[in-house]
Amino acid sequence: MASITKPSDLDALPVTPADIARAAETIKPYAVRTPLLSSPALDALTGARIFLKAEPLQRTGSFKFRGAFNKISSIPPEARPAGVVAFSSGNHAQGVAAAAQLFGMPAVIVMPSDSPVTKRERTKGYGAEVVLYDRDREDREAIARDICSQRGATLVPPFDDPKVIAGQGTIGREVAADLTALGVVPDVVAVPASGGGLMAGVAIGIRTAFADCRMITVEPEGFDDHAHSFASGHRQHGVAKGRTICDALMAPNPGELTFSINRQLVAAGTVASDREVGEAMAFAFRELKLVVEPGGAVGLAALLAGRLDAKGKTAVIVLSGGNVDAELFAKLIVASA
Amino acid sequence: MASITKPSDLDALPVTPADIARAAETIKPYAVRTPLLSSPALDALTGARIFLKAEPLQRTGSFKFRGAFNKISSIPPEARPAGVVAFSSGNHAQGVAAAAQLFGMPAVIVMPSDSPVTKRERTKGYGAEVVLYDRDREDREAIARDICSQRGATLVPPFDDPKVIAGQGTIGREVAADLTALGVVPDVVAVPASGGGLMAGVAIGIRTAFADCRMITVEPEGFDDHAHSFASGHRQHGVAKGRTICDALMAPNPGELTFSINRQLVAAGTVASDREVGEAMAFAFRELKLVVEPGGAVGLAALLAGRLDAKGKTAVIVLSGGNVDAELFAKLIVASA
Repeated sequence: MASITKPSDLDALPVTPADIARAAETIKPYAVRTPLLSSPALDALTGARIFLKAEPLQRTGSFKFRGAFNKISSIPPEARPAGVVAFSSGNHAQGVAAAAQLFGMPAVIVMPSDSPVTKRERTKGYGAEVVLYDRDREDREAIARDICSQRGATLVPPFDDPKVIAGQGTIGREVAADLTALGVVPDVVAVPASGGGLMAGVAIGIRTAFADCRMITVEPEGFDDHAHSFASGHRQHGVAKGRTICDALMAPNPGELTFSINRQLVAAGTVASDREVGEAMAFAFRELKLVVEPGGAVGLAALLAGRLDAKGKTAVIVLSGGNVDAELFAKLIVASA
Repeated sequence: MASITKPSDLDALPVTPADIARAAETIKPYAVRTPLLSSPALDALTGARIFLKAEPLQRTGSFKFRGAFNKISSIPPEARPAGVVAFSSGNHAQGVAAAAQLFGMPAVIVMPSDSPVTKRERTKGYGAEVVLYDRDREDREAIARDICSQRGATLVPPFDDPKVIAGQGTIGREVAADLTALGVVPDVVAVPASGGGLMAGVAIGIRTAFADCRMITVEPEGFDDHAHSFASGHRQHGVAKGRTICDALMAPNPGELTFSINRQLVAAGTVASDREVGEAMAFAFRELKLVVEPGGAVGLAALLAGRLDAKGKTAVIVLSGGNVDAELFAKLIVASA
């Protein structure tokens, strides 16, 4: 794993540092340049120097707006009236809906019927048409592709697409710029993984500036297809078992394109349990004053649970989103009070 | 009101732009330089360009650390072993306790017995001794002064002190620097007011860069002693009536020193009701992904309730803190879901 060690090798990847630099220019007028936060309380607790990339503060409440906007901006003008289609558990849904709305394009989003109410409502709020499917019995990709062919619409894939990966990579680029301005070199960067698009983009963005930085995926326990795939060197399918409160991180296997990048840049994968995620969300409420959704909190959860080797080191944790139903958030913060 | 219009007139105030610049250097290694956030959702909703200064992200969860640290740093070495004493409903308590701990000084904090549990526990967590008093029947200032004279300790006033005001002023200085970097000139800045120390500091910091910016205090309904005092031109006492969920904003009248500054810089005062504050906190949860406490949310509440004339303008809202009990926060976000 992590076979790439020279920044110049990054130019041979299917998404390059130049692609990310272009994406950064594309999204700049519309995306929030989210802050890289530090917390003296968290540093004291972990014995590490921790920086938190706060993507809950991003437009639509998660990082997904970046990739969606970058992808949709590349659709040629003649294809725009037919609109876009996406399948998503909720954050990509909102990112695509909001980006399409900014381009004046119709959007259809295929969402699982058990996705959080707040994510469904917010997706509709950006003017998108929502089509629900049964997560256990129906094939969301087939439904989305059917709608695309009926309408001549363009599919905006959730992760396995160079434009989407380049958009998410702007996070790594911003983190690298902020750390460079502070004169800080990170030892490790932990990133939530589902299909692996966020990790692929962030890894390229970070490694462009910090060639030796150790990249780690974090997944929900029972959904650690990346960890298994890194260990075996091949994409593992059928790893997922059970349920998780991390509704955003339930992709059944690493993406093909994303894994072709991540296998060369990522050192390893770790996990966080539902209990650890709930405690991390309560910690973020109490100490960071940030609303982080379950899937967005896996990196912080792994850090607080001692699953990341951060003591004495400088670590970046990507908090990837904050779209969580009020009822679940209320339950978790009161349980941990 | 707002009789000062030239930046050079600021140098005649009891706290000057140079005092704030010095405070900024003093607190820099320990305070968080909090981000100035923007939210496309909030801009769309209000028809304004809104910037949010996110002091919930400050060390100790509120702006109070700035003034407390700046004040304590000015205590001469020979007076440090006797420690500090403060009276506070909770945020100043934590600011003083955390700053004293960084200087290795003992701290005694006099807190009302009905202050939020989280604020009491966090104050103890910074190593301070907490002395409770009855808000309706006892005089907290007398209790604090007794302890000071018994121990030879230094009182750290919550607002009516030049070093404290200069520390809070670093917020205005940071906002001005960030807006200047963006090429943006603010029309109005709204700041929560209790004793008026935050407003005084922020007003000097902002008006140093933006001579024409309109400064507005925001207070809980029934506790609008600043609004009454600006209207009459004199400090009004005995305005407070009833209760408010804004535990941080219950000072009974403007400070003497703070009002001598604010009367020359602030245009007017407005208010927010408990209901509006609860809805603003729920909005911040849903749309901003920030945890804001009741007293910290009055400016946002006034904006969302249409009590601030912001439409078509550029406005800065200071969110002053995020220390709120999980139970109350849970109740408010679920009620508004």
